[in-house]
Amino acid sequence: MSNRMVKLARRPRGMVTRADFTIEDTPLQEPGPGEFRVRIAYVSLDPAMRGWMNEARSYIAPLKLGEVMRAGAAGIVETSNNPAFKVGDSVQGAFGVQKYAISNGERVTKVDTSQAPLERWIGGLGMPGWTAYFGLLDVGQPKPGETVVVSAAAGAVGSVVGQIAKIKGCRAVGIAGGPDKCRYVTHELGFDACVDYKAGGLAQQLKAACPNGIDVNFENVGGDILDTVLTHMNVFGRIALCGLISGYNATEVPPGPKNIRAVLTQRLRVQGLIVFDWADRVPEAIAQLGQWHSQGRLKMREDVREGGIDAFPDVLNELYTGGNFGKLVLKI
Amino acid sequence: MSNRMVKLARRPRGMVTRADFTIEDTPLQEPGPGEFRVRIAYVSLDPAMRGWMNEARSYIAPLKLGEVMRAGAAGIVETSNNPAFKVGDSVQGAFGVQKYAISNGERVTKVDTSQAPLERWIGGLGMPGWTAYFGLLDVGQPKPGETVVVSAAAGAVGSVVGQIAKIKGCRAVGIAGGPDKCRYVTHELGFDACVDYKAGGLAQQLKAACPNGIDVNFENVGGDILDTVLTHMNVFGRIALCGLISGYNATEVPPGPKNIRAVLTQRLRVQGLIVFDWADRVPEAIAQLGQWHSQGRLKMREDVREGGIDAFPDVLNELYTGGNFGKLVLKI
Repeated sequence: MSNRMVKLARRPRGMVTRADFTIEDTPLQEPGPGEFRVRIAYVSLDPAMRGWMNEARSYIAPLKLGEVMRAGAAGIVETSNNPAFKVGDSVQGAFGVQKYAISNGERVTKVDTSQAPLERWIGGLGMPGWTAYFGLLDVGQPKPGETVVVSAAAGAVGSVVGQIAKIKGCRAVGIAGGPDKCRYVTHELGFDACVDYKAGGLAQQLKAACPNGIDVNFENVGGDILDTVLTHMNVFGRIALCGLISGYNATEVPPGPKNIRAVLTQRLRVQGLIVFDWADRVPEAIAQLGQWHSQGRLKMREDVREGGIDAFPDVLNELYTGGNFGKLVLKI
Repeated sequence: MSNRMVKLARRPRGMVTRADFTIEDTPLQEPGPGEFRVRIAYVSLDPAMRGWMNEARSYIAPLKLGEVMRAGAAGIVETSNNPAFKVGDSVQGAFGVQKYAISNGERVTKVDTSQAPLERWIGGLGMPGWTAYFGLLDVGQPKPGETVVVSAAAGAVGSVVGQIAKIKGCRAVGIAGGPDKCRYVTHELGFDACVDYKAGGLAQQLKAACPNGIDVNFENVGGDILDTVLTHMNVFGRIALCGLISGYNATEVPPGPKNIRAVLTQRLRVQGLIVFDWADRVPEAIAQLGQWHSQGRLKMREDVREGGIDAFPDVLNELYTGGNFGKLVLKI
């Protein structure tokens, strides 16, 4: 029995390639006192991962060369010296891209697979769901009747944002790539409208979808999408800046939002958010999202990829090309 | 006796020219019931003026072609049918670029010239001062010990921002153009440091001036200055976006802040501000600024230009080239 893991071999330029990583087999470790071992079943693929590989100042220390690739993951406790985590418990945490992880339980959450399948606990009921919950409600602060626009609306975070906006009595408008995703966003998730950024005429489409302008933008993408949204923001609008995925693989610093003047003239509030800042309120998010989910008010979709550990670089890239449909997870 | 006024003749491209305006003489109007006539002594020249001349969506309706150029101004009531405004009263209001204005008193403030000279009431004790007061305190929300950076620090707004920051127990760092302005900012106004953006090495200078990073940025300029500030902002920092003067005369939309990613990674709050939104609290600002001023804690400097009405276009341009030193006003 051995572990298998993905380590960062060099700092990627642009999209990641297999050569940026080494895949290593190591002897399986036994947990020490207070520790337990998790057999990982699903690894979460998140847009932020690309940034962790860079050396630049960020909200979290850059991944070191030779370090196991940081990742959220879900699995089953296989052997335990920690009374709070029993063999057979389903758990999620920052276990990394590997088959097995040793943990002392810090920032690990036990999850209830009778309520939702294991992979969903690293998706809409996990970190992406918490991001949507705190980002929309605490940062975006939507009021009933307001228009909420979310980019990457078919994705793990965006899909939850729009559904919470609906629950809170807002008009929810998504921006997504292609007719299939847009149909899913409106027909399955219940958004009021969805703009297909691949269809052209983004500004006209957005204007038509938001006849009363935009009060809250939950921004995951940046680039042209953010620039177009900026020109439709209402006075005192809020932009919850959650991601700028359009620029994560750029080899030069991408252009900034040229319509920033709207922040001034419309007195917008643009605020960055990182879900870690709400660590102490995660139980609240889990409880509320779980309740809405069990009531059928919060639909979620995972895009589960086969291929195991070795497929990591290729599957990760799908996030940045829009190749995934729903929360992207790698089955181990 | 006749009035003389500046009217917008066409929408300027780039810096204004005399040909963008017509200068007209009209018969002097008599005030109607409830109205009074002001003989204007000083016209305020503000960076925002350039934007008012454009047709683009903004926080205020664009100036119409043929309209008297919008401007704050201060003068003396010369004849009055309004019991609240007596002949000889000193007043300030949005009287426009002209020698005389008729007003019904709406949004006109009586000012006390025994406390400060008339021109100061359209400067540090007027709209620019109120902008500094509400923008720094309400939007920037500085806490004692924090570092506040303000661009255009020798200007009408910036000079007040930094002095209020000092009053509130912050480290105040200015950004200004040239050694004279920087010396004024530190030696006269009492800022802790001033960075000369014309001297080169802006990032290094700013880093040296802000050893603990930047908590609050009061931004008047935009462009490279904002981009440099962004890379030095601390986690949970705030940017009060008051102006983007570096781009006001651009003939193409200028590039946006390429370091916007810092908003996300550092969880910054960037918020636009227009002083009109605090209209109901102007008396508070006047009282507080006046108190600090009379205590000698708030120093102000006006750059009074001769030449009267006809000099308006040329004097206005000085704002955008940094040719003024202190609050720029045109003497009528």
